[in-house]
Amino acid sequence: MVSPIRISIDAMGGDFGPSVVVPGCAIARERYPDSSYLFFGDEALIRPLLEQHPELAAVSEVQHTDVAVRMDDKPSQALRHGRRRSSMWMALDAVKSGRADLTVSAGNTGALMAMSKLCLRMMPGVERPALAAIWPTLRGEGIVLDVGATIGSDAEQLIGFAVMGEAMARALLGIERPTVGLLNIGVEEVKGLEYIRAAGQILRDGSIPIDYYGFIEGDDIGKGTVDVVVCEGFTGNIALKTAEGTAKQIAQYLREGMRRSLLSRLGFLFAKAAFDTLREKMDPRKSNGGVFLGLGGMVIKSHGGTDAEGYAAAVSLGYHLSRNNLMEKIAEGLGHYNRDGADAGQETTEVVNS
Amino acid sequence: MVSPIRISIDAMGGDFGPSVVVPGCAIARERYPDSSYLFFGDEALIRPLLEQHPELAAVSEVQHTDVAVRMDDKPSQALRHGRRRSSMWMALDAVKSGRADLTVSAGNTGALMAMSKLCLRMMPGVERPALAAIWPTLRGEGIVLDVGATIGSDAEQLIGFAVMGEAMARALLGIERPTVGLLNIGVEEVKGLEYIRAAGQILRDGSIPIDYYGFIEGDDIGKGTVDVVVCEGFTGNIALKTAEGTAKQIAQYLREGMRRSLLSRLGFLFAKAAFDTLREKMDPRKSNGGVFLGLGGMVIKSHGGTDAEGYAAAVSLGYHLSRNNLMEKIAEGLGHYNRDGADAGQETTEVVNS
Repeated sequence: MVSPIRISIDAMGGDFGPSVVVPGCAIARERYPDSSYLFFGDEALIRPLLEQHPELAAVSEVQHTDVAVRMDDKPSQALRHGRRRSSMWMALDAVKSGRADLTVSAGNTGALMAMSKLCLRMMPGVERPALAAIWPTLRGEGIVLDVGATIGSDAEQLIGFAVMGEAMARALLGIERPTVGLLNIGVEEVKGLEYIRAAGQILRDGSIPIDYYGFIEGDDIGKGTVDVVVCEGFTGNIALKTAEGTAKQIAQYLREGMRRSLLSRLGFLFAKAAFDTLREKMDPRKSNGGVFLGLGGMVIKSHGGTDAEGYAAAVSLGYHLSRNNLMEKIAEGLGHYNRDGADAGQETTEVVNS
Repeated sequence: MVSPIRISIDAMGGDFGPSVVVPGCAIARERYPDSSYLFFGDEALIRPLLEQHPELAAVSEVQHTDVAVRMDDKPSQALRHGRRRSSMWMALDAVKSGRADLTVSAGNTGALMAMSKLCLRMMPGVERPALAAIWPTLRGEGIVLDVGATIGSDAEQLIGFAVMGEAMARALLGIERPTVGLLNIGVEEVKGLEYIRAAGQILRDGSIPIDYYGFIEGDDIGKGTVDVVVCEGFTGNIALKTAEGTAKQIAQYLREGMRRSLLSRLGFLFAKAAFDTLREKMDPRKSNGGVFLGLGGMVIKSHGGTDAEGYAAAVSLGYHLSRNNLMEKIAEGLGHYNRDGADAGQETTEVVNS
């Protein structure tokens, strides 16, 4: 008999608020009968939607607040107006106080990051949180982090990302020994930036119990050369957005080509299975949901513009990670890491930062 | 009556050497009857190939050398063994001495960069060379630089890239006022790295005669939001490789889908026109050839693993850029830029570096 997974929901987050969030949770609830929901936001909007989904309503609570973080709020604005009283903050606080196992928000990334850090604090031994993305690859799925929680990094922080990403791969992909690579470029001799080389050296020396593959290049991400791709947040965000742009671009070329003649349209119908495969593999709704790693609680970030199906994917991701003890796995990984000499490194960094 | 374009060729560069290089030049020669060729490399390999292409042979000279830079040579090795006597160096030297208008090499990027800097020196007013890539976009073609000539950058160097890339866009795309964007990430408030913000401020203030668009994100590259995407070399290389990886990944999904059933195979035949469109748009051979900008002469880098068609594309690119006075356009752009106060900035950088 396993305990249910309790999910706190920032119902006002995202471009469409409760009208996407509630139906999204209804889909997730169907998938996971042992999930329960705690909605934060405008009760007058949430209640009528819940009534349309009685099975969801039966396992849901609603806590009203008038305050919502806007999609264009800067993190500082969000903190000023939304601290303690916004749906985003209250959803995070439910995790902090133990009323929920994880929270899901489609609200703006910067605000969610800032509030998460303030409300949930960092996990012991973590210097910086990371936003981890799930990336469809030719071998299945991979994890790429950081895709933009912070920019700039040093070797110790990259290693922290590696440890957290590896733990997430174990929880998400069910692999016992996920492989980890450092994203770098192949310019001869130079071989990338100093802090990446330094991180590579530490990971290679084997003191951290991670299956370290080595440096990888941009095209290795989609190939699935490793299970976990580690990089600094600026680089990771550029890579993620560039890949999304390329996928859209190719889809557009195909659409244009298909429209060219009656024959191509007919061909399209016949080859529909192939396109369905492609759509399924590349559907951003299937892999909707970034995960903030390194915080004192689990926070799932859904895309702001997603639909109910996409929101359900984000909730499902959170459910799955919670069921597979992501937080415990990270803490365990960090424990190894910190025992193995990272404490000295952290002190150094703190001195540098002060 | 225009003067012919004389092209010096590192015949030994690339995975296949003369067996791809010579037929590639034969294709280019057919396209541009007013082009002539100066081959450097193993005469015993080059001559028999030239005999198979009498029209090319009629406008070609061969200069023998036993020495070739290997694809896995480090830049320092290449310089040690290949300076003054390798086919790569000699091809560059032909540009330096005025015997050729440009050089094309499929040799290794690091070695070519190092030799180019040493042999051709930098253009006056340029601090750092950049490798510019031509990127297929939904609006046609764009230019992205730097894609890996160097890593790390400061604001002044980014502006140098912007000026050179804009000049290249005028020469390549025939646009009078190309738009220029700085690659950045959309993390709220943070809005990217300090040197990118600084470069943005200088470009926004209008003292440099460039049509500056503003910051763009990774997905804007493929959209063609701007004609010229400016970024530091590490970031640009990651973006380029990630896009290539994504394109290959999608092609693979489509192939798998197509093989699934007889019906999809039939559909594929009917929809062939659509796939041909896609193939043409994404064909790496069509946009084969990076351009080193900022050197005292024009250097085109072909992919090492390309075929004759791809090599011809690199030669054609060089021909086209030379015909459209790339070097003069860059010098002119840099003249504007340096007159407009960049000298002060350069001095600062030199102080910092010393």
